[in-house]
Amino acid sequence: MTLTPEQQAEIDELRSQPRQTLRAVSEGMEAHLYKAVPVLDHGFVRVVDYMGDDAAITQAARVSYGRGTKAVSNDEGLIRYLMRHWHSTPFEMCELKLHVKLPVFVARQWIRHRTANVNEYSARYSILDREFYIPEPDALAAQSVVNNQGRGEALSGEEAARVLEWLKSDAGRAYDHYQEMISTEGQQGLARELARMNLPANIYTQWYWKVDLHNLFHFLRLRADAHAQYEIRVYAEAICAMVKDWVPFAYSAFEDYRLGGAVLSARGLECVKRMLAGEEVTQETSGMSKGEWREFSSMLDG
Amino acid sequence: MTLTPEQQAEIDELRSQPRQTLRAVSEGMEAHLYKAVPVLDHGFVRVVDYMGDDAAITQAARVSYGRGTKAVSNDEGLIRYLMRHWHSTPFEMCELKLHVKLPVFVARQWIRHRTANVNEYSARYSILDREFYIPEPDALAAQSVVNNQGRGEALSGEEAARVLEWLKSDAGRAYDHYQEMISTEGQQGLARELARMNLPANIYTQWYWKVDLHNLFHFLRLRADAHAQYEIRVYAEAICAMVKDWVPFAYSAFEDYRLGGAVLSARGLECVKRMLAGEEVTQETSGMSKGEWREFSSMLDG
Amino acid sequence: MTLTPEQQAEIDELRSQPRQTLRAVSEGMEAHLYKAVPVLDHGFVRVVDYMGDDAAITQAARVSYGRGTKAVSNDEGLIRYLMRHWHSTPFEMCELKLHVKLPVFVARQWIRHRTANVNEYSARYSILDREFYIPEPDALAAQSVVNNQGRGEALSGEEAARVLEWLKSDAGRAYDHYQEMISTEGQQGLARELARMNLPANIYTQWYWKVDLHNLFHFLRLRADAHAQYEIRVYAEAICAMVKDWVPFAYSAFEDYRLGGAVLSARGLECVKRMLAGEEVTQETSGMSKGEWREFSSMLDG
Amino acid sequence: MTLTPEQQAEIDELRSQPRQTLRAVSEGMEAHLYKAVPVLDHGFVRVVDYMGDDAAITQAARVSYGRGTKAVSNDEGLIRYLMRHWHSTPFEMCELKLHVKLPVFVARQWIRHRTANVNEYSARYSILDREFYIPEPDALAAQSVVNNQGRGEALSGEEAARVLEWLKSDAGRAYDHYQEMISTEGQQGLARELARMNLPANIYTQWYWKVDLHNLFHFLRLRADAHAQYEIRVYAEAICAMVKDWVPFAYSAFEDYRLGGAVLSARGLECVKRMLAGEEVTQETSGMSKGEWREFSSMLDG
Repeated sequence: MTLTPEQQAEIDELRSQPRQTLRAVSEGMEAHLYKAVPVLDHGFVRVVDYMGDDAAITQAARVSYGRGTKAVSNDEGLIRYLMRHWHSTPFEMCELKLHVKLPVFVARQWIRHRTANVNEYSARYSILDREFYIPEPDALAAQSVVNNQGRGEALSGEEAARVLEWLKSDAGRAYDHYQEMISTEGQQGLARELARMNLPANIYTQWYWKVDLHNLFHFLRLRADAHAQYEIRVYAEAICAMVKDWVPFAYSAFEDYRLGGAVLSARGLECVKRMLAGEEVTQETSGMSKGEWREFSSMLDG
Repeated sequence: MTLTPEQQAEIDELRSQPRQTLRAVSEGMEAHLYKAVPVLDHGFVRVVDYMGDDAAITQAARVSYGRGTKAVSNDEGLIRYLMRHWHSTPFEMCELKLHVKLPVFVARQWIRHRTANVNEYSARYSILDREFYIPEPDALAAQSVVNNQGRGEALSGEEAARVLEWLKSDAGRAYDHYQEMISTEGQQGLARELARMNLPANIYTQWYWKVDLHNLFHFLRLRADAHAQYEIRVYAEAICAMVKDWVPFAYSAFEDYRLGGAVLSARGLECVKRMLAGEEVTQETSGMSKGEWREFSSMLDG
Repeated sequence: MTLTPEQQAEIDELRSQPRQTLRAVSEGMEAHLYKAVPVLDHGFVRVVDYMGDDAAITQAARVSYGRGTKAVSNDEGLIRYLMRHWHSTPFEMCELKLHVKLPVFVARQWIRHRTANVNEYSARYSILDREFYIPEPDALAAQSVVNNQGRGEALSGEEAARVLEWLKSDAGRAYDHYQEMISTEGQQGLARELARMNLPANIYTQWYWKVDLHNLFHFLRLRADAHAQYEIRVYAEAICAMVKDWVPFAYSAFEDYRLGGAVLSARGLECVKRMLAGEEVTQETSGMSKGEWREFSSMLDG
Repeated sequence: MTLTPEQQAEIDELRSQPRQTLRAVSEGMEAHLYKAVPVLDHGFVRVVDYMGDDAAITQAARVSYGRGTKAVSNDEGLIRYLMRHWHSTPFEMCELKLHVKLPVFVARQWIRHRTANVNEYSARYSILDREFYIPEPDALAAQSVVNNQGRGEALSGEEAARVLEWLKSDAGRAYDHYQEMISTEGQQGLARELARMNLPANIYTQWYWKVDLHNLFHFLRLRADAHAQYEIRVYAEAICAMVKDWVPFAYSAFEDYRLGGAVLSARGLECVKRMLAGEEVTQETSGMSKGEWREFSSMLDG
């Protein structure tokens, strides 16, 4: 990732000017503010603003006037209770605003999460930079042979080299032509809103993305999951690290009840009961399909 | 409105402890934080938290790294441009969290605005206070004779007195029975989630309500409007006064383009053009229905 | 529940006039259309319209041109896969529109589910009917002694009689005064938007409620749950019966993976593994709080 | 646009099998069902399903039991009233499901409208077809010189030819490499979720898109507008033609009050009043900025 000196100077300036506020402050998050955490080869995530902290969650749940006199330990217990019982609205009372730089094909996955506010850099209005995501060799994976929607081993050296060469040269040529098309030197110059169509999906874009904590947890559960595509998962993991410092009780409950937890179907629950009663249950006697049984078994073995 | 001494003490304590933050700070809003602005006889609105300021709107619109070097005058111009051209997403980058105490029948109108986060005081879990909205005499209006959904003149003295007496005595009796039903003195005590059904719609409830600035403007345009029911309009007006201090450029653009503006239909626009060309247009020649023409005329006369 | 002869005649007429359509048709749902299923003493749920069927879910998941040539058994397997892996968007491709008559305090719980479209009968504009929810004796429950948000035993005879008497007489008196306040006989007549504030929360209201199948399942999971308040649960159960006939594969997957399933926390999963390995795990060695352990144990025993 | 014979056969089959339903039927929309309306060079829009008709809007507004006995003329008047007074919820009671084939850069604009349900063809799971949007010569426009976000004249012959050549050859080469990268002939084969990153933004994708009528009107107002990018506007216009046949009263009100209407700011309204009173108003005396005045003047001249 490369920030220009001007960008870095702007960030430094913002971090050098603390101001007074009466609002809830999360010291853990203040330490992250504005800093750009590198993700992939040219991307980043940085916190631009936040609202609330762990106490704001319990305060909303109690509809109280102030922080109350409850001990901190009560806050943690209440947060765990709310998470366990799917009381989602108190978590919606915290809000996070991020500035993210990411490849377009990642942005297209990300935007499917609709309950967020987005402002994307406009390629109708502005000119995109010459920056493309080119995977590291160990991220250059073959198609999975067991799962249509997944990856297998990393590609071997020669095949990998060929792929990388194509990714680089095609992106470079596409960008050269993009520039030549919009140039007004000795010609009219194609409209930007049209010229962008020549650019591949690994070009980087940027956006401001703002979301409440409940919906952020939902995003993180799906995108920090082992089945998520690697290129979005690294963004989700970078965000997890920030959220952990921002609202430590809520994040810990999220880890326990969502990220690290498991969902049992009625059939799965029945099987667990039978197994605890000493019965040996197999796929045939489980009532599950093969795929379901494989997932069930790996959950209990994992 | 009555805050208990404990509630006032909590508010005072929160206002006495400024902390340092690196986030955007709106001085205008800091002055409002936590204070309870009285609305109706027992209600209030108070700001519990906010995110962003005028500069945060333009920063998101530009997807920029910092505040940039743009002069403030540019910010105002850009904000007016965004509002005029219905670019709503930059306004979504500001967020407001309010604590509101309001009669249930007002809450029922308010909640129709779905793009907000809400945590309401739970009458399944807790006991509601004995506080009811009883209108001031000048708010005790007759049904409009021209509009099925509106009010006419204030009721005359005797009729008003009878209405007030019923409102007070029915509410009081209902609350007495509510208390007796849930009491566990010498009896089992009815479940709170059931006993609440005896309480009338003018009892006060409370909630935390969090919304982004774009959706807040939509709420305010509908509810600060002269056609909104008086009892919700006074809440909207109290919020307008806060927003004006929070994001003065955005609020000013909202006043000009939304609150004080007008929408012309294609027919209305055509009529205006004909009138400007010197033609005398009447309802008959306008192509409008009587109701539409009345609204059109009052817009141009108003 | 009472429909007037006019209402029943309108329903009968609608059911007597089948028309031709090229759209997906669910025979199971056609049998329900327009009929009013009684709920509580004066309420009902009736299907006013629906979009899609089981095949519409898989068709959207495959983004296909028609129904394809896939066997029905594949549809069921795919639907179960989608449900198990939280692929929610295909379920959003089905839509249901209901007409519901329900007490106001139930409506207030219901409306918290924000991802739906609602049109409620307007008490600003129209006059509410004299219909109140009065619980059956076995639904007249005491406050739970173990759970602040729940019910215990039914009230004993004398206490129950007293409560019922209050509920009936307070509602009746409130409605009498409502009528007298809005009357224009020999007086101005209070505005309807004000007079309604005198009415208690057990008065019935009505609305049209439209929701997609994914969000409907979310609603049903929370409201058909044993912990939901009885008065909303009976509505959820009535809807479940309709959905089962509308989209039998999707409903069956919902029952297995959501309604009848269970969520294990990371700690809970760890305990299950230890138990399956032969260890005797107690609350003390589980790492769970007492409340959590109680829920965990009852899940495995239940 | 090219449908394969198999796709056309599926469509024909669906249109050949009318079934009976008790639901509201819109004859105008039945005529469109399943047919693919060509848009751009390889795209299309086709209606897959719909819910409701004009009568469904007024039925929901009245929360009525059936169609009622109101004359059709009342329906039209009520629909115009609802549209004029921003009563949006009755329009939400109609729903439309479309199957759309569109270039990726158009899909990226479209998806910003978040209040819709979307199922997109998955390039993680499946292989994209070799189909790219290549503009017609008259759509190959230069960047506007007066508006950063717009188009000017069509490019001249030589420049246009050069641009077209680049668009075609870059897309072709990128697709060749895409195919070679995912091929498993004599190599491992790159994962599809990675290989897609080499494809440019003018490649076609497909999705199912489902939206309620209120939010569809909002989409159409912005995207059928003269300022929208041409490549999304043609989709919006194709949808307008369908909606006009589906809900003719609602569409007519939409045309009059939204598409063909105009919004006056408070300043603009004041200027109109002064002009009607005979005053000559100029930009200098209008209180508007130059940009605002230009838009205001062109509205009154247009």
